[in-house]
Amino acid sequence: MSVINLDHISSNLLLPEVKAAMIDAINRDLANPSSQHKRGEEAAELLAKARESVANLVNAQAPKEIVFTSCGTESANHAIKGVAMANAKKGKHIITSNVEHNAVIRSLRRLKGQGYTVTSLAVDAHGHVNPQDVADAITDDTILVSIMHSNNETGTIQPIAEIANITREKKIIFHTDAADSVGVVPIDVQELGADVVSFASNTFYGPTGVGGLYIRRGTLIWPILDGGVQEHNKRAGTENLIGIIGMGVAAEIAKRDMDKRLSHLNTLKTKLLNDLPNYIDEYIINTPPTESLPNLVSISIQYIEGESVMLMMDDDDIAVSTRSACATGSLRASHVLLSIGLSHADAQGTLVVAFGIDNTADDVDRFLESLRNVVTTLRNISPLYQKRAKA
Amino acid sequence: MSVINLDHISSNLLLPEVKAAMIDAINRDLANPSSQHKRGEEAAELLAKARESVANLVNAQAPKEIVFTSCGTESANHAIKGVAMANAKKGKHIITSNVEHNAVIRSLRRLKGQGYTVTSLAVDAHGHVNPQDVADAITDDTILVSIMHSNNETGTIQPIAEIANITREKKIIFHTDAADSVGVVPIDVQELGADVVSFASNTFYGPTGVGGLYIRRGTLIWPILDGGVQEHNKRAGTENLIGIIGMGVAAEIAKRDMDKRLSHLNTLKTKLLNDLPNYIDEYIINTPPTESLPNLVSISIQYIEGESVMLMMDDDDIAVSTRSACATGSLRASHVLLSIGLSHADAQGTLVVAFGIDNTADDVDRFLESLRNVVTTLRNISPLYQKRAKA
Repeated sequence: MSVINLDHISSNLLLPEVKAAMIDAINRDLANPSSQHKRGEEAAELLAKARESVANLVNAQAPKEIVFTSCGTESANHAIKGVAMANAKKGKHIITSNVEHNAVIRSLRRLKGQGYTVTSLAVDAHGHVNPQDVADAITDDTILVSIMHSNNETGTIQPIAEIANITREKKIIFHTDAADSVGVVPIDVQELGADVVSFASNTFYGPTGVGGLYIRRGTLIWPILDGGVQEHNKRAGTENLIGIIGMGVAAEIAKRDMDKRLSHLNTLKTKLLNDLPNYIDEYIINTPPTESLPNLVSISIQYIEGESVMLMMDDDDIAVSTRSACATGSLRASHVLLSIGLSHADAQGTLVVAFGIDNTADDVDRFLESLRNVVTTLRNISPLYQKRAKA
Repeated sequence: MSVINLDHISSNLLLPEVKAAMIDAINRDLANPSSQHKRGEEAAELLAKARESVANLVNAQAPKEIVFTSCGTESANHAIKGVAMANAKKGKHIITSNVEHNAVIRSLRRLKGQGYTVTSLAVDAHGHVNPQDVADAITDDTILVSIMHSNNETGTIQPIAEIANITREKKIIFHTDAADSVGVVPIDVQELGADVVSFASNTFYGPTGVGGLYIRRGTLIWPILDGGVQEHNKRAGTENLIGIIGMGVAAEIAKRDMDKRLSHLNTLKTKLLNDLPNYIDEYIINTPPTESLPNLVSISIQYIEGESVMLMMDDDDIAVSTRSACATGSLRASHVLLSIGLSHADAQGTLVVAFGIDNTADDVDRFLESLRNVVTTLRNISPLYQKRAKA
């Protein structure tokens, strides 16, 4: 039996059209897009086409506003460090939230070591930042606000447009890490109002190793990779053309199929939430009922360890995760789950179910069956559960 | 007629085995190597195998000493900025040469804006750095020496092992940008003695969009991409696994075929140098007769423009370049050629012929035929040449 992937936040299949485009690119032995001879021009045209597709996906005004990077993490590093360095003379204060991805948290930690100060805002029980808190945190020294679009552990979608109204008025650059949103939910940078938006190709069934960064025209930001004149002087380095071509095709299809995908994912999510009480009890749903991703459900299963659930479901050929793959190996409880008010024990009992377009209603049924067995087994040997049962 | 690629410094074909491995990886829909379930483990094993192949190619002591990056430029940025930031408390002085790649030059320029000082050493007429100059430039404040292994415009190979003897004694970190050397000439990091070595997959017929960085165990260096725990905590971001798998296969074959390739490239280079006087006159060979890359010949053709030669040869279906593709669009004469003492006019008349394993002796003949015609045509309309002819 093939493995059911319910860990789409960590990895996605490649669309057949993406595979075909990448394989074609591999077989064509494309030249360097910067070369001035015919072979270079052909490569440059393919690069331009992919940039246009990605620009369309997020509704950028011009393809030039899109920079191709090597991953969502590079995009977030570029956004934060690039804006911080370029605007250091104006100020050194940055505002963020307590629930950001490590790419943002650790970029900011790096900047703190270089004399920047960071205000990190608390979130409510649904993981939402209060826009008023952003307004209140702004000082004369503030140069950047970085608040994620959606959270990769809870699925919470932040009120980005409202925050952008505040930053725009104060002329402060606003970055949103939309690595789990672009290509999954409609992202229109004109409506959102953020100045810098980071994202990743694999979120929408393109390859890993390619990311994108939307930089609104006129935003003061430096490259973090210095060297050649690639990417309109915003990101040096010979392009990952095969990957970029794949990202371009994935972007086109994401835009085309957006409504269909949203409806499919919402159906699966609703089914899971509706059926779950028939299979297990004593759990907490961390994903807010509204303002959340259509493909993600975070479930804290009380009295047991999420990691044990994940490993036992792996034996049932079901891939789920306890949190972002990027945080693997860390033994500490998720900072996101603690921030929304979960106890340490409940945080450790959390499972992230992330659907993809390849999942079916049958997958949900199989997941629920497996989950019931696993939870029963684990609770039978859980001292915490025994104690509670006796209470 | 298919285009003859004599611009291998800008782009290379992919080896058939590399194509096959990448296409297989594409078709397998690999998971995230950081995921802890079965699907993740399979991906992690493929990542480990590629790392081992690359470690073998440069004779690293352990695969852990290899960090995968997104390109040679990222590797050089990581090396320079990563060492500079991590060692800032020890000192802020860096030594380099006048003929480095823009990835090095501009990374250093960025650091100068942050309070670092840089000594850039002159080179001789062959483009060589004198190791004694490195020794003389070292101060108590010196934390890093960055001298390239081979030059991408002249082919000059630097005396890296001699320089390493000096830096090792002074306990100064030594980075060498070997982007045009690794996979082309034997690179043994134990013999070279450099602490940090940057390189790129496409140099040895792997894909673009993947680079490598050798970091000797114990070297104090920070990541430049902060976030997750990938690459042994040295480089965050979801891996470009398809590209990395391609790089691994290319590394294996580069090691296996090294002698055969060297002999083939040397034959082509020798033929070009021997036959050239039968086709054109009044030119300068900028590539040193020894201590240079086997695949590169830089020719300054007097009284005409290299760019015109390049464009006219393009019409003859021959791809050559005037310099690094990364420097395309810059109208200034090459800093490398001016550094070795060429006049501005001769620098502008320069053509870089970069052979690859796919070239044949026939390609050299076709190039020479075309070159003769192009040079004759251009000199006939060159005022400079007319003036000189009358003199």
